[in-house]
Amino acid sequence: MVSFECDYIAGAHPEILRKLTETNMESLPGYGMDHYTESAKEKIKAACGMPDAEVEFLVGGTQTNSVVISTMLRDWEGVIAADSGHVSVHESGAVEYTGHKVLQLPGKDGKLEASAVRAFLENFNNDVTHDHMVFPGMVYISYPTEPGTLYSKAELEALSEVCREYGLPLYLDGARLGYGLMSDACDLTLKDIARLTDVFYIGGTKVGALCGEAVVFTKGNRPAHFMTSVKKRGALLAKGRLLGIQFDTLFTDDLYFKISRHAIEMAGRVKEIIREKGWQVYMDSPTNQQLILMTEDEMAELGKSIIFDRWGVYDETRTIVRIATSWSTTEEDIEALSKA
Amino acid sequence: MVSFECDYIAGAHPEILRKLTETNMESLPGYGMDHYTESAKEKIKAACGMPDAEVEFLVGGTQTNSVVISTMLRDWEGVIAADSGHVSVHESGAVEYTGHKVLQLPGKDGKLEASAVRAFLENFNNDVTHDHMVFPGMVYISYPTEPGTLYSKAELEALSEVCREYGLPLYLDGARLGYGLMSDACDLTLKDIARLTDVFYIGGTKVGALCGEAVVFTKGNRPAHFMTSVKKRGALLAKGRLLGIQFDTLFTDDLYFKISRHAIEMAGRVKEIIREKGWQVYMDSPTNQQLILMTEDEMAELGKSIIFDRWGVYDETRTIVRIATSWSTTEEDIEALSKA
Amino acid sequence: MVSFECDYIAGAHPEILRKLTETNMESLPGYGMDHYTESAKEKIKAACGMPDAEVEFLVGGTQTNSVVISTMLRDWEGVIAADSGHVSVHESGAVEYTGHKVLQLPGKDGKLEASAVRAFLENFNNDVTHDHMVFPGMVYISYPTEPGTLYSKAELEALSEVCREYGLPLYLDGARLGYGLMSDACDLTLKDIARLTDVFYIGGTKVGALCGEAVVFTKGNRPAHFMTSVKKRGALLAKGRLLGIQFDTLFTDDLYFKISRHAIEMAGRVKEIIREKGWQVYMDSPTNQQLILMTEDEMAELGKSIIFDRWGVYDETRTIVRIATSWSTTEEDIEALSKA
Amino acid sequence: MVSFECDYIAGAHPEILRKLTETNMESLPGYGMDHYTESAKEKIKAACGMPDAEVEFLVGGTQTNSVVISTMLRDWEGVIAADSGHVSVHESGAVEYTGHKVLQLPGKDGKLEASAVRAFLENFNNDVTHDHMVFPGMVYISYPTEPGTLYSKAELEALSEVCREYGLPLYLDGARLGYGLMSDACDLTLKDIARLTDVFYIGGTKVGALCGEAVVFTKGNRPAHFMTSVKKRGALLAKGRLLGIQFDTLFTDDLYFKISRHAIEMAGRVKEIIREKGWQVYMDSPTNQQLILMTEDEMAELGKSIIFDRWGVYDETRTIVRIATSWSTTEEDIEALSKA
Repeated sequence: MVSFECDYIAGAHPEILRKLTETNMESLPGYGMDHYTESAKEKIKAACGMPDAEVEFLVGGTQTNSVVISTMLRDWEGVIAADSGHVSVHESGAVEYTGHKVLQLPGKDGKLEASAVRAFLENFNNDVTHDHMVFPGMVYISYPTEPGTLYSKAELEALSEVCREYGLPLYLDGARLGYGLMSDACDLTLKDIARLTDVFYIGGTKVGALCGEAVVFTKGNRPAHFMTSVKKRGALLAKGRLLGIQFDTLFTDDLYFKISRHAIEMAGRVKEIIREKGWQVYMDSPTNQQLILMTEDEMAELGKSIIFDRWGVYDETRTIVRIATSWSTTEEDIEALSKA
Repeated sequence: MVSFECDYIAGAHPEILRKLTETNMESLPGYGMDHYTESAKEKIKAACGMPDAEVEFLVGGTQTNSVVISTMLRDWEGVIAADSGHVSVHESGAVEYTGHKVLQLPGKDGKLEASAVRAFLENFNNDVTHDHMVFPGMVYISYPTEPGTLYSKAELEALSEVCREYGLPLYLDGARLGYGLMSDACDLTLKDIARLTDVFYIGGTKVGALCGEAVVFTKGNRPAHFMTSVKKRGALLAKGRLLGIQFDTLFTDDLYFKISRHAIEMAGRVKEIIREKGWQVYMDSPTNQQLILMTEDEMAELGKSIIFDRWGVYDETRTIVRIATSWSTTEEDIEALSKA
Repeated sequence: MVSFECDYIAGAHPEILRKLTETNMESLPGYGMDHYTESAKEKIKAACGMPDAEVEFLVGGTQTNSVVISTMLRDWEGVIAADSGHVSVHESGAVEYTGHKVLQLPGKDGKLEASAVRAFLENFNNDVTHDHMVFPGMVYISYPTEPGTLYSKAELEALSEVCREYGLPLYLDGARLGYGLMSDACDLTLKDIARLTDVFYIGGTKVGALCGEAVVFTKGNRPAHFMTSVKKRGALLAKGRLLGIQFDTLFTDDLYFKISRHAIEMAGRVKEIIREKGWQVYMDSPTNQQLILMTEDEMAELGKSIIFDRWGVYDETRTIVRIATSWSTTEEDIEALSKA
Repeated sequence: MVSFECDYIAGAHPEILRKLTETNMESLPGYGMDHYTESAKEKIKAACGMPDAEVEFLVGGTQTNSVVISTMLRDWEGVIAADSGHVSVHESGAVEYTGHKVLQLPGKDGKLEASAVRAFLENFNNDVTHDHMVFPGMVYISYPTEPGTLYSKAELEALSEVCREYGLPLYLDGARLGYGLMSDACDLTLKDIARLTDVFYIGGTKVGALCGEAVVFTKGNRPAHFMTSVKKRGALLAKGRLLGIQFDTLFTDDLYFKISRHAIEMAGRVKEIIREKGWQVYMDSPTNQQLILMTEDEMAELGKSIIFDRWGVYDETRTIVRIATSWSTTEEDIEALSKA
């Protein structure tokens, strides 16, 4: 059986394991005070072209979203997100657990439109009862989005402009950031992301790490006493080196981007197979996740040799199936899919 | 100036003030342990035809919703509500403050449809990723709804059936319950409400009381140690007598229903005036709130003698205006509106 | 039976009921936007000698503590309180419910000593692990304290100085403020309280009101969007007039102070009776609550005609009994106690 | 420089890294659904002598405490802990963040005494105002305790008995469990711990793992929908294999116990050195942490070649210094300390 189930089916990129092994017996201080963590931060700031940014490491994506959102929002505020956003749907209410509402707006192809955000903010301000409502206090987007689509540079600039105009921080969830940036359809660079958002995270878990996400506060806006707030949320790792060494490795010699590009190339091969087989595409995705429609019979057939993800129900007879590539997808995997 | 702004512009029904004054110097125990509170509970249980129901008094509507919802939901659950529901829009995120998500479904005329709830629950159960989502743990409806519409008996029965089928408690927010039950369009009784829901509250604040809502747990389902949970939420009134005496008065000689009926009759007179004047109705309401569309010029004219509520924006030129009657609306008020 | 159980056994001071009745049919806006509330705020600011203070009304004491503390603390902070403080013991964890720790210090006669607070803050700052701890973010005291004692002016000044030195707001819980200020042992004025604290509340529930507490932010430090935060906590009263009219009455012609003084005089009579009868005093109190030690037999005897409060367990044979006077205590009550 | 700063200065036991590397490219399902996680659970259950126990893996100690405590407590409850307990002092208020109070009792040598717990529970039950208080809902202890002491079997049995008598779950924080069980002073086995507690965790982070703690619910008492509650708290690891493989390795061939025993032997050597040098011991510890008193001068001297932890302030001239051994302490480290 070959798995295309998701982009976290394998362990870590071998270079990461090598580095963890090499440094294993070094005595290092805890809680991210070690020099590998420091080095990783510097490399990420350089990659962002932002020497003054502040970088913090957390363990997983939902944790990162709830920590960042709850430490940046003020008491009376909630976070705007597309109704298909990860924080809206697939985090078991982690944002609400921190006492804040997710203000869900209808998205388009998984994306939040600047015009929809502007209309919402205008309506809110015009509503004479808004003191009885949740104030919008942040805008959350995913890049790539949950179904694998990408914001264009123009779209991100438009969102960024609305946010600046209304004084709201723009937060970009980059759980799969590498797979977005390395897509042929991407017209954004990491530096653009850093410039156009107020805070974002570079996903490690889905892009070669065992675990870990790197949060970048781009505008001198890291919440005060962030370490204590992280601890309070049960999110502070004692052996911070585990995160630091992994990101130090990923941001050495462009490893993060190279392995992301590999996944995109493998996804290109998957798209060819989809075309050849005539499978119906649910939503065209330029990134590492391909969504196709299948009947139960088709899934039974494919499932004989391939592990895939049932992403959602499409209609009474068809399911949305996800075929995901990642840094770990091999030529052999692609051939197995082709034969399936 | 005559006010039709809302249904809480006046103090209390005079009979309530009379009773508060009459009993004022009696020494009574605190925290709702007094005999007036006991008497009020008994009268409400009798009115509901439910000798075994459990009745608790709280101070206001948002407080009641957040206390009831957060003490009944389990950790992994959220509450289903119409996107126009009070808990969805106008409580500043009070439910989310307790750590729970409001699962918003599109409503129709302010109402949640049984079919929509059923579809949502089926989809949830069929979703293989649902352990990563918020589990539906309760259904919230308002009666009358926020724009003043009513569920028919058939509609409430259908909702009740879905809830029973899926094992979810059905919670009815009766902030304006009297104005619903006394509407000509109502085919439900208080006993029907008690039978078809699992918990509901009888609104006092908007129906003749200075403050106060009576929560009725109809199925032996009052959360354990409810008093402590109420205290923990800052919602326990030291002088519980203030709530007990008010509800004891409202449920003596059907006062609650008589004054509700008065508001409905006054609303009938308002509807006649609307017809006569040819004002355009936004949503037809059989209860005490009438929603009409007005331009800025029309509002300026009306505003010379009448205080009304800007309920929402309709389009670029027109506003949704609310004209609300209540137990305190007088013939003179109606005449003033007619002349305006 | 005559009750000395607590200071909230009666309804409201008759003048309050008179005023509520007189204004009952006036149409007023909700949520504290009415002119009585405005007038009450002005009178309180004048009584505090602080024209720039900001005054807000809430319903009860625990609610006030949890709203004030949770809106003023920052994410990483907790509130320092005596281990006998109301927030430490008798609020069912209402502060913790908002996500903040009560940092309990041993008190002396119910009071927090400036030296203890200073030592705690110094230790905290010196502790190299303090980023893993809860930062002290506020100091909470009660005046009078829970057992009825009072801070002297020198003690309050010392606390105020420590707080200023360490940049912490000093919050005074004045649930029984009137009974403190009118005590013969009091060397503080309301203006002193306003000057020496950063925020405090003037208790209404226990001093003549049906309900209600007036929070005074003395240093331009009312939390932003306070109304929305209050709503979010289920603490916003629709008919804000209920609180405004009561405090407007209490702060007209010094009513608050006159009725407080009456309670103190009645407490003086109780102290005489205690002396005459040779009852053993648990803690000498110059305010309206007297704590005495009684055996079960003595309580049984007293309980034949007097209702009192079992305040706590003293030792294996004796209970701490509370005899409380209030604005509503009468000469007849005192005589009944004397005869008991 | 040689570090005795804490027991998490090194990476993972080499066998763990070997196993992570060996299994790295295997395709495995996420969220702990993989066969290594399953195997680890089985081995832990076997080691506990409890085939019916339920085992769950979490990332770190504070996270584990806040997840376990907040999912097991009911709304009206708090957790009893020694005032020196990790949850009381060094978790930045993580328990309070979940809305629950830590009910702190004075400890003795870091331990909670059964008699103190019993007295607290009796007083609580006898207190007529206890509905206004936080109900005790769980007892938390650490083994070894924060300063390194151990409960004897008799002490743990006594605590267990009190808990059973009052119907409270007993929760044991085993962040350093191996170092306790392998101590010469220990008269308890892992099976005893499993039998005498209701829930406990086996610490990995401090005993050879990169991260990870194994929670054991011993009495069929795992909270319902635990995975969703974990996700809601941002604590669900996508690559659950990282935890599963580590614990599978630690519980193969008694590795966990062997490496723990090594740390204890090294601690024995440290104790000899302390004796030889005549350093004053703060609290005698039979586990891997030794606490000694040092002046600034002494620390400056020792600090030339040894990294140690300033554990706390003892008096005006002396600091409590912690010398910790761990699975990674070597003979060379001990020699370096001896020479220092």
